[in-house]
Amino acid sequence: MPVNAIADYSTYPLISPLLQARLQPEGIEVTWGDQRRSPFHYLWLRDNCPCSACVYSVTREQVFEVADVPIDLTAQHTDVDEQGALRVVWQDGHESRFDPGWLRAHAYDAASRAERRAARPRQQRWTAGFELPLFEYQAVMEDEQALLDWLLALRDAGLTQVRGVPTEPGSLSHLARKIAFIRESNFGVLFNVQSKADADSNAYTAFNLPLHTDLPTRELQPGLQFLHCLINDASGGDSLFVDGFAVAEALRQEAPQAYRLLCEVPVEFRNKDRRSDYRCEAPVIARDAWDEVTEIRLANFLRGPFNTEPDVMLPFYRAYRRFIEMTRETRFQFRQRLEAGQLWCFDNRRILHARDAFDPASGARHFQGCYVDRDELLSRIRVLQR
Amino acid sequence: MPVNAIADYSTYPLISPLLQARLQPEGIEVTWGDQRRSPFHYLWLRDNCPCSACVYSVTREQVFEVADVPIDLTAQHTDVDEQGALRVVWQDGHESRFDPGWLRAHAYDAASRAERRAARPRQQRWTAGFELPLFEYQAVMEDEQALLDWLLALRDAGLTQVRGVPTEPGSLSHLARKIAFIRESNFGVLFNVQSKADADSNAYTAFNLPLHTDLPTRELQPGLQFLHCLINDASGGDSLFVDGFAVAEALRQEAPQAYRLLCEVPVEFRNKDRRSDYRCEAPVIARDAWDEVTEIRLANFLRGPFNTEPDVMLPFYRAYRRFIEMTRETRFQFRQRLEAGQLWCFDNRRILHARDAFDPASGARHFQGCYVDRDELLSRIRVLQR
Repeated sequence: MPVNAIADYSTYPLISPLLQARLQPEGIEVTWGDQRRSPFHYLWLRDNCPCSACVYSVTREQVFEVADVPIDLTAQHTDVDEQGALRVVWQDGHESRFDPGWLRAHAYDAASRAERRAARPRQQRWTAGFELPLFEYQAVMEDEQALLDWLLALRDAGLTQVRGVPTEPGSLSHLARKIAFIRESNFGVLFNVQSKADADSNAYTAFNLPLHTDLPTRELQPGLQFLHCLINDASGGDSLFVDGFAVAEALRQEAPQAYRLLCEVPVEFRNKDRRSDYRCEAPVIARDAWDEVTEIRLANFLRGPFNTEPDVMLPFYRAYRRFIEMTRETRFQFRQRLEAGQLWCFDNRRILHARDAFDPASGARHFQGCYVDRDELLSRIRVLQR
Repeated sequence: MPVNAIADYSTYPLISPLLQARLQPEGIEVTWGDQRRSPFHYLWLRDNCPCSACVYSVTREQVFEVADVPIDLTAQHTDVDEQGALRVVWQDGHESRFDPGWLRAHAYDAASRAERRAARPRQQRWTAGFELPLFEYQAVMEDEQALLDWLLALRDAGLTQVRGVPTEPGSLSHLARKIAFIRESNFGVLFNVQSKADADSNAYTAFNLPLHTDLPTRELQPGLQFLHCLINDASGGDSLFVDGFAVAEALRQEAPQAYRLLCEVPVEFRNKDRRSDYRCEAPVIARDAWDEVTEIRLANFLRGPFNTEPDVMLPFYRAYRRFIEMTRETRFQFRQRLEAGQLWCFDNRRILHARDAFDPASGARHFQGCYVDRDELLSRIRVLQR
């Protein structure tokens, strides 16, 4: 008797049984085995009715629309049925049944909401001394558990290395597609990081690149970046990483006003060449509704002129410079040279990456890269965890 | 003498000549021919030095980093040179020259900032009686001015139709690629909108679809949606469009509190099937830093259970239902049946779209669709306007 046919393919274990359900003026209050009480408004319950008339069972998408019932809808009757489900008989005779596991997982009393918030995955912020999570190409390609472990490390630590990757050009795409399709950009589906005479980005020179995120010039910066080393015989060109969330937190502690400015003042980033002209204006630090940092947007070489009130300009320069200075402090840095057959995969919206200048005359250096979005990473994790 | 070598490939006409430049404690104040005065901080000017030591001329990207000069940097000397450029000689002997057209375009005194804000492109909101901007496939494919006209209509009116499109499957991609690469999703690069027995979305049934945006389940909803009619011999299935920004504005006027709730309370949207599980939590109405609406996120059939404090639940349902009710009012609606060889292209983050139920037994109906992001649209417009 799976009554949660509204089904998001997840399963909802029975945390605590439903003891009682009572009609109230605006909804139904249920009492759980652990004595928690959860109110559910009539509209909320009617809206979430999982029956096959309300949810199309093939797509598992709702066909019922809550705008089609009276706003003051009430129920005739409610009870906890023999299988422990919440049963509701509506004014118009329609009946709904709710699986108690599903109901508990979606209850919106303060305790239930706080519990869900607390159960969210936690990012592990890191500084120098970071223990790099290492994965083997063959295992990740063949074993779903190894794949999941890798993806969880990407989600939570943000920086990973995969070893044993074939060094044929294009091999990277097989690995990326274990997550999902690749996000294309004007630089291609796969991009080649090599020193080029007609470079359309400083990335395609032999210059050092300061710590940055890729494509801050797009409304949505790519979520994951892959960098696959095919050959690295040139001297120099070490990779450098910093956890941007750790730096943001350190700045918040040290200089809350500077942190606030980086959260609030939009900065324009620009990518332009003969065929394209991308611009995006957004703050360096983005936060979610709970004030937690969700994104760093930074690439000094792609930045446009600051455009803020004259009174804010100097404090803003101080804040921006301080953030850059902190990223340069070794206490935050993880440094390693990437060798042929190895690959970086990291959260491009969190982990700043840089490379030292290299000497193209000293030997060949060829990396390939690509992007996959955060939505795809999280979707793949959810499916693997079903 | 192009001194704006920091070059973003734009040109900056001389609006008003530079008359005078004076050293001040924190920067340089310039006076323009029209008597406007603009302060520029030393750090801002040094940061934007366009010389070939500071900006790599091949990529036109900065190699200089503002974190590498003293925070209290000052200039030895400034003047307006014979060509009318602002010249600055720094403490350390470095020299910068700024084109007066570029400098005026980036001045950050209050008047200059207000002027730039006012010059932004304005969206033309529409209601019933909308005059649909029509374009011819052949013209858009061959003539850059016709292409630009179409793209400006997409940016400003949000809904367009293109006629004379070949009805071979896949033809759509030629048109989309006049803008840029296509944004892939789990539904493919091109998706086929047909009634399917094993539908993984209500879009792939013969049901009516209520007014919605596509992929509200992704952090970044696709910017442009294309829907190309290959054959439409089935009865029913008319297309319906509403300008979501016009509805949001009407709601703001009618019920400011309801509007505020839709701007602030995050709603979860879900797309799930056997291979994927996308979720995104975001408000129905998104606004920019100036409180202007930038996005609507709405698809009743992809919505998860509301999850907000019990006190907010009923007011939120009222606001959500009122928004849905307004989208159903004919005063906002534009309705038209799409015929073979015709194509809708619209701003998916602004224009809600719907289709009536159709009868698959009455004849064939086959649409193809794809997505292109807003970044790509705006980049293409900028390049065409250079």
